[in-house]
Amino acid sequence: MAYNSMVVRLELIRVYFTEVASAIGRAGGDILSIDVIRSGPESSVRDITIDVRDAQETQMIASLKAIEGTRIINVSDRTFLAHIGGKISVESKIPVKNRDDLSRVYTPGVARVCSAIHEDQQKAYSLSIKRNTVAVVTDGTSVLGLGDIGPYAAAPVMEGKAMLFKQLGEVDAFPICLDTTDTEEIIRTVKAISPIFGGINLEDISSPRCFEIETRLTEELDIPVFHDDQHGTAVVVIAGLLNALKVVGKRMDQVRVVVNGIGAAGVSICKMLLNAGVKRLVPVDKEGAIVRGGTYSHPMWQWLARQPEVETKQGSLKEVLPDADVFIGVSRGGLLTTSDIKKMAPDSIVFAMANPSPEIAPDEALPHVRVFATGRSDYPNQINNVLVFPGIFRGALDCQARSINEPMKLAAARAIASVVTPSELNEQYIIPSIFNELVVAKVRHAVIEAAIITGAARRVPTDFR
Amino acid sequence: MAYNSMVVRLELIRVYFTEVASAIGRAGGDILSIDVIRSGPESSVRDITIDVRDAQETQMIASLKAIEGTRIINVSDRTFLAHIGGKISVESKIPVKNRDDLSRVYTPGVARVCSAIHEDQQKAYSLSIKRNTVAVVTDGTSVLGLGDIGPYAAAPVMEGKAMLFKQLGEVDAFPICLDTTDTEEIIRTVKAISPIFGGINLEDISSPRCFEIETRLTEELDIPVFHDDQHGTAVVVIAGLLNALKVVGKRMDQVRVVVNGIGAAGVSICKMLLNAGVKRLVPVDKEGAIVRGGTYSHPMWQWLARQPEVETKQGSLKEVLPDADVFIGVSRGGLLTTSDIKKMAPDSIVFAMANPSPEIAPDEALPHVRVFATGRSDYPNQINNVLVFPGIFRGALDCQARSINEPMKLAAARAIASVVTPSELNEQYIIPSIFNELVVAKVRHAVIEAAIITGAARRVPTDFR
Repeated sequence: MAYNSMVVRLELIRVYFTEVASAIGRAGGDILSIDVIRSGPESSVRDITIDVRDAQETQMIASLKAIEGTRIINVSDRTFLAHIGGKISVESKIPVKNRDDLSRVYTPGVARVCSAIHEDQQKAYSLSIKRNTVAVVTDGTSVLGLGDIGPYAAAPVMEGKAMLFKQLGEVDAFPICLDTTDTEEIIRTVKAISPIFGGINLEDISSPRCFEIETRLTEELDIPVFHDDQHGTAVVVIAGLLNALKVVGKRMDQVRVVVNGIGAAGVSICKMLLNAGVKRLVPVDKEGAIVRGGTYSHPMWQWLARQPEVETKQGSLKEVLPDADVFIGVSRGGLLTTSDIKKMAPDSIVFAMANPSPEIAPDEALPHVRVFATGRSDYPNQINNVLVFPGIFRGALDCQARSINEPMKLAAARAIASVVTPSELNEQYIIPSIFNELVVAKVRHAVIEAAIITGAARRVPTDFR
Repeated sequence: MAYNSMVVRLELIRVYFTEVASAIGRAGGDILSIDVIRSGPESSVRDITIDVRDAQETQMIASLKAIEGTRIINVSDRTFLAHIGGKISVESKIPVKNRDDLSRVYTPGVARVCSAIHEDQQKAYSLSIKRNTVAVVTDGTSVLGLGDIGPYAAAPVMEGKAMLFKQLGEVDAFPICLDTTDTEEIIRTVKAISPIFGGINLEDISSPRCFEIETRLTEELDIPVFHDDQHGTAVVVIAGLLNALKVVGKRMDQVRVVVNGIGAAGVSICKMLLNAGVKRLVPVDKEGAIVRGGTYSHPMWQWLARQPEVETKQGSLKEVLPDADVFIGVSRGGLLTTSDIKKMAPDSIVFAMANPSPEIAPDEALPHVRVFATGRSDYPNQINNVLVFPGIFRGALDCQARSINEPMKLAAARAIASVVTPSELNEQYIIPSIFNELVVAKVRHAVIEAAIITGAARRVPTDFR
């Protein structure tokens, strides 16, 4: 099957094939071949191989579904084909070809290696996979835009993440998909399986459980624990904001920032903004602005309500947005209109990162803002946390960090921002591509430096000695 | 550093180097180079590179340690070098080179794949790594001959096992080293992490907890759970015994079998012997024979005491061994003498599998037995469970078996035995080498066949249709 093609097994019940063919044509596809699987007087089943270009598969399927009398039995497209049998494998680093090899990597030779670790547990870092291995842990409760789809359905995302860990950061990552959503049970399980791992990447665990799980695991384990949905997003937002502020000529301690959507990512963004020096912060959720001195059942909202930098002015998003210099949305699509955006301060910065539809459509916002960014790849300035986790863990593993603390995250954000040089920097280019080869190296370096000076590092890598 | 060499960093305190050099020579080594690291009036530190042959490393270290005034600071030998950074890695099956690749294996494309599994959980077998992935789970309580060394020190064994899974069975195996020894906690943890795995290989968990853990997990999970120390050993023992009986011309239902050491492996061996048709069984542990009608606190011993094939005669190992046709030892070294062995029935079969020293030294036993086997590779007939797990899991995964039941294990034993052809079979060759390429294919085939006919298979592999 060709790289650019998809195969649809279609049942046609009293439908002429010409109708199907023209639907395929209208959706931009080209029929390459038709195999009749079964044919009867009233219905037939055919495999139709269609030449499609990128991202047309969904549209193609929708067009075929729309024809009365057709039933899609199965679709094999490039995306599904890439997933057959899973996307990662476990490989031996050295072959075991004969008894001599075997006696070294397994019994009896391995016993001496085991004894060495037993005598000095720290040697697990040199004599086992621990020093380069991260668990990508999910309970499947908050996967992409899909929500609570469970641990089985979450697996392809975790495998994809493991691929990116390897490809971009040379980190060995293994997916752990948990068949429990109980906070205490998740904490217990991750602690129980931690010995083989040098770090824990929490992923797609819904709010507010994610806060307790991460906090407790960070306290109770001596390896770094990083909830990517919180901090990965926050780090890349701060990176983008650092550069956006340079473009508009404002400073972090001058701007008024509205953050909309105070869930996993929103909380971490607010924290990092405060650490980065923001003095006027307006966190907003569905019930309106979270204000200083307010009372909230959500523990992180209550924490925000105690911060001196948080404003006291109450109101809905639309009521608090006027005169903001920066809007950061991690909420949902279509919340804002052109007239809302026009009321912001001059040279406004809008990061509208709701997926798949941003808080305001790019075409509506662009004429009225100075810097605009989204989570999407089809507009400039994609705020993508793939920029963060490979380098952050590469650094944390290389210095055997106990944790990934706030200074390490801020260092990572500054490193990502620094990849865009002053001469390159402009409204359309505030954040590097995830395929920019400088990103991981710079993030790693900054994270290690920060880990050393904050005492989180247990080892000084040779290139830092 | 050459393949056959080791480097010892040695401190010499008022010792002449000639003394060290002659110790190295006596231990069979050849000095290749000497690097002085530090030199003072009273002591010096040197890196000595020594040419050694196989399995001499331990002896060499002992010889150097024995010299008064020397201190070994560090040893890098082939075995340790093979373990630096661990022995396995996680790799991507497909590269992620550009945004197009990324959108297929990660967001946004992966969302459709997740949805497909969410709609039909069985699709996890085709669209994630589940169908080829096994967890190698230990709590580090009973590792090799080392005992309770904990989860960190157990890692190199689990990694070695993962290598063999891949090399011999093409199975992706990942080590899970548990930081708990609590039975319920282990059961909960393995259940919690099970979604990504197609099977669970329990390893080096001490008796009697291992029985409860395996039984409960088998009941509560729908993927195969296999405690290798129990059943891997039992399967290969039965395989060897099937062929040994052919050599001596006796039948399974005729022989009197003494099994010594009724722990994890011993219990499973007894069960399999009964399933294989043995009518006269004498299980023996430290307190002597476990007899029919007896009362025991160990639940598996109590189970044995209810089996009609178990003898009622009480006594110590030495008292019950006379007239036995078969002795199977999974206990400890040096328990038996020549005179004990001579009292067995004519054409006796002795499997002395204690590690590293067999229940009776091979040289003492060989003149008085017809077939002799050990767990060691330096004598003929090595009873090694590496013959079992790659093929058993290859088969179980390929047919998506719910469990690995007794008929599947017996089928595996018969398949291993069948690799030795009638013309090859003799006293010195009752069991194939683990590097015999027929083993995995034959075990896989037999296991799938047995899974299909016992209803354990959820899928009929294409080569069985």
